[in-house]
Amino acid sequence: MEVVTMDCKKFVEEQISQIKQTVGDATAINALSGGVDSSLVTVLGHRALAEQLKTVFVDNALMRQGEPQRVVNTFADMGIPVELVDAREEFLSALAGLTDPEEKRQAVTNTFYEKVFGRLVRESGAKFLLHGTILTDIEETIAGIKRQHNILAQLGIDPEEAYGYSVLEPLKTLRKDGVREVCEFLELPAEISQRIPFPGPALATRIVGEVTRQRLDTVRAATEIVEEELKDSGAFQYMAVLLNDRATGIRDNKREFGQIIVVRCIESTDARTATATELPWDKLQRICERIINEIEDVNRCLYDLTPKPPATVEYI
Amino acid sequence: MEVVTMDCKKFVEEQISQIKQTVGDATAINALSGGVDSSLVTVLGHRALAEQLKTVFVDNALMRQGEPQRVVNTFADMGIPVELVDAREEFLSALAGLTDPEEKRQAVTNTFYEKVFGRLVRESGAKFLLHGTILTDIEETIAGIKRQHNILAQLGIDPEEAYGYSVLEPLKTLRKDGVREVCEFLELPAEISQRIPFPGPALATRIVGEVTRQRLDTVRAATEIVEEELKDSGAFQYMAVLLNDRATGIRDNKREFGQIIVVRCIESTDARTATATELPWDKLQRICERIINEIEDVNRCLYDLTPKPPATVEYI
Repeated sequence: MEVVTMDCKKFVEEQISQIKQTVGDATAINALSGGVDSSLVTVLGHRALAEQLKTVFVDNALMRQGEPQRVVNTFADMGIPVELVDAREEFLSALAGLTDPEEKRQAVTNTFYEKVFGRLVRESGAKFLLHGTILTDIEETIAGIKRQHNILAQLGIDPEEAYGYSVLEPLKTLRKDGVREVCEFLELPAEISQRIPFPGPALATRIVGEVTRQRLDTVRAATEIVEEELKDSGAFQYMAVLLNDRATGIRDNKREFGQIIVVRCIESTDARTATATELPWDKLQRICERIINEIEDVNRCLYDLTPKPPATVEYI
Repeated sequence: MEVVTMDCKKFVEEQISQIKQTVGDATAINALSGGVDSSLVTVLGHRALAEQLKTVFVDNALMRQGEPQRVVNTFADMGIPVELVDAREEFLSALAGLTDPEEKRQAVTNTFYEKVFGRLVRESGAKFLLHGTILTDIEETIAGIKRQHNILAQLGIDPEEAYGYSVLEPLKTLRKDGVREVCEFLELPAEISQRIPFPGPALATRIVGEVTRQRLDTVRAATEIVEEELKDSGAFQYMAVLLNDRATGIRDNKREFGQIIVVRCIESTDARTATATELPWDKLQRICERIINEIEDVNRCLYDLTPKPPATVEYI
């Protein structure tokens, strides 16, 4: 890994100044996902623009247990108002029937940009959009590894033409570790700076096969258990994935055909490469026991051993 | 677990005597799968009947690397002739297009009994069939947990009517540990008495989704690696399973959508209950590395943490 000594103070001042200069007297909007990238953009944007920046949190039905309200509250505590927008039905109907990973990601992207966020932007009258793209997103998208929803400009799509707004990407020179460093420099709450990475299409990336309300409930319950059990693990990222395959099992002496949850926990500094975390055996056993006992219809729990590459962190 | 002190000598003498008495001057036939159960039946049968017993090994295309010839050789070394029957095409065409676990097991069962073995029995003129059913098979089938291919009588199917022969089941009072004990008493080679359990429908139980020649090659290669790496683990059983789901990955900086292998390794005494084996982390890592590097199109390797119940040992 390259070692770059970053001057956080200078970075923050430059970005705030550049946002101010670009936006001028206009208004800007940004979507907060709760992740460290969009959180830092929100903080930088509000320092630069104050009430000229409108921040929305879109509930896409794909978030974790209690997450939308928790994120809004964290920012309220910092004096930053965030508008919570309920778009759950729109996302669920866009995802209905889709099983192809690309189509699923595309459905989330299109629903977000073209429908929900596009509408919010038009209603707000904002001309500028602040976005949390980081360097790794750009690199992986260019390399064809990842299809990111937030880097339209880098993909050669003219955002002005495509969605009706201009995009500012103040973090596009940073990797994940740089973003965390700036968050710590700004003394943002640990639930922001230390938050484990969570992808844009959220729990939809952790469901192989169709994304339905019921399957979201299953992976959400598993995610809750995994995050609770691994919050002190010190790992870079940890998650639960619901497979589409089922496997035989026995419960109350009867044959059943149950669902399968994969636990993934990784070590990484910047998400470009990763290795599976060596978790203590009794911790793995406890997670497995909780998942098969507390979640209806799940009878297998697997631990992902694979590094990135050749696996990615997420499953779709 | 119940503790039963078994008199091996008495058991062997009684079974040999009963086989002799039942078969009389007629001829008998049995199918050897290479597993410890059918191996013990073959040895008992040959001691009772000598050349009145014809033993066949049916190559169903679902066996492990080199297995058919290896089994035939092991028995040749004991002076027991085994006829190797190539029925690969019949099994593969019966399995083509099937994805439902019950239909897959049924296709293997029907192809074996009604087509291949039925034909061999008719051609041989044998009136008696020796079979390796053990007590656990009977219990689990009655409980609806398992659909066994070799216990027609217990399921209330009249074998005389259904397939044209009578079934003798000399091991039906033993569990797996009892079978091993008798094998050791008889001083059978370790590759028989210590052989890890392998199911009747063979690698077909380790493929979720359709069983094709190509998918068999994939799970066969993974099985070879897992068995090689875990042969000294002391575990009760270990295997590789090919899922039907695929997951994203990156190889040579390009996005790919690869196959997933599950490694399962269990501790058990009689296969009625089991727990996942606590394997050393570097062993798990080595297995994962070999699987993702040596097998084409596989980019994930998962370790199954689940006990039985609620999971079964196999996946279909």
